[in-house]
Amino acid sequence: MKTYTDYLWINTKKQKELINITQQVREAVKKSGVKEGMALINSMHITSSVFINDEEPGLKQDFLKWLEEIAPERPEYKHHQTGETNADAHLKRTIMGREVLVAITKGDLDFGPWEQIFYGEFDGQRRKRVLVKIIGE
Amino acid sequence: MKTYTDYLWINTKKQKELINITQQVREAVKKSGVKEGMALINSMHITSSVFINDEEPGLKQDFLKWLEEIAPERPEYKHHQTGETNADAHLKRTIMGREVLVAITKGDLDFGPWEQIFYGEFDGQRRKRVLVKIIGE
Amino acid sequence: MKTYTDYLWINTKKQKELINITQQVREAVKKSGVKEGMALINSMHITSSVFINDEEPGLKQDFLKWLEEIAPERPEYKHHQTGETNADAHLKRTIMGREVLVAITKGDLDFGPWEQIFYGEFDGQRRKRVLVKIIGE
Repeated sequence: MKTYTDYLWINTKKQKELINITQQVREAVKKSGVKEGMALINSMHITSSVFINDEEPGLKQDFLKWLEEIAPERPEYKHHQTGETNADAHLKRTIMGREVLVAITKGDLDFGPWEQIFYGEFDGQRRKRVLVKIIGE
Repeated sequence: MKTYTDYLWINTKKQKELINITQQVREAVKKSGVKEGMALINSMHITSSVFINDEEPGLKQDFLKWLEEIAPERPEYKHHQTGETNADAHLKRTIMGREVLVAITKGDLDFGPWEQIFYGEFDGQRRKRVLVKIIGE
Repeated sequence: MKTYTDYLWINTKKQKELINITQQVREAVKKSGVKEGMALINSMHITSSVFINDEEPGLKQDFLKWLEEIAPERPEYKHHQTGETNADAHLKRTIMGREVLVAITKGDLDFGPWEQIFYGEFDGQRRKRVLVKIIGE
């Protein structure tokens, strides 16, 4: 059994941004030497996400607009009594998810035709980490 | 260590439909020969889900109605400028989730009393795939 | 390869409640003897969640208020025709998620600075179970 651990550092230019990290994850899978197994990819922060969807610029705008509708920025969150201003980012990350688990088959991500891995930042413009943990053989 | 990979093909009759796939996953676990480990079950498409909930017809209707409320069909999504008409399906799938990971204990899915695995289709009536990846011993 | 299985019993005082279970999971990881691998933590019930977020009392109130907004208690759910009254709990759990998968590195949960594991109960005041399944070496 093999295991492999990697950390991707991400610093977004905007406060809210969706970034395609598929290539970095694919490189981690290659480095791991795992041919059959699983790759966990998760945000190590609680105001950002890792999720799988389509690389299409319009859809990425739709995601951000929709998240603002169902998990809006609002001054009156109780979390803001601590001095924070990012309660909406905790909610948005919950909708989009913390992590994905991807099968590794024949040494590569076992993906459907449109699957791409994204880092979703909802409280950005600072250095954050994504964990890649691979197990298999 | 053992690994096992299977692909379930699904073609729904309706555009939006929730289908119980617990039995097919259970058969994959048996075929794998894994007694202790984990089974990843994920949609390979970005407009459909795999999730765990209850096999109750009324609840399945509630899920579909609720998804239409919080992630509605709308002509004005930016994604539709590409010619697509299914942006709502990307959002609905995000709410319901791409994947589940189920523990395998003593050779079977280690489930609570009501857990059932569903494929959730939100842009259907065509052939799609669900991946089952099993690792363990 | 090692595997380890544990079940945490939880009985909430309130019908809806978010409970920090990080310490119990950490103890399970220690007992497992796994130094490199993955820990799956999932609710075994379909009206409760396991998720990762921040241990901050105001934020926990924000989560519960927000869930009531987007997945409200309502008499008219079809699921209630069976005699049940908890359809909203199925929806709330869907938003918060069934499970988390956490990397184990150097014998401990490989967490970012604020990550904490919560059990989210939405139909409580009775005994329920959380599964912890660990694989690795």
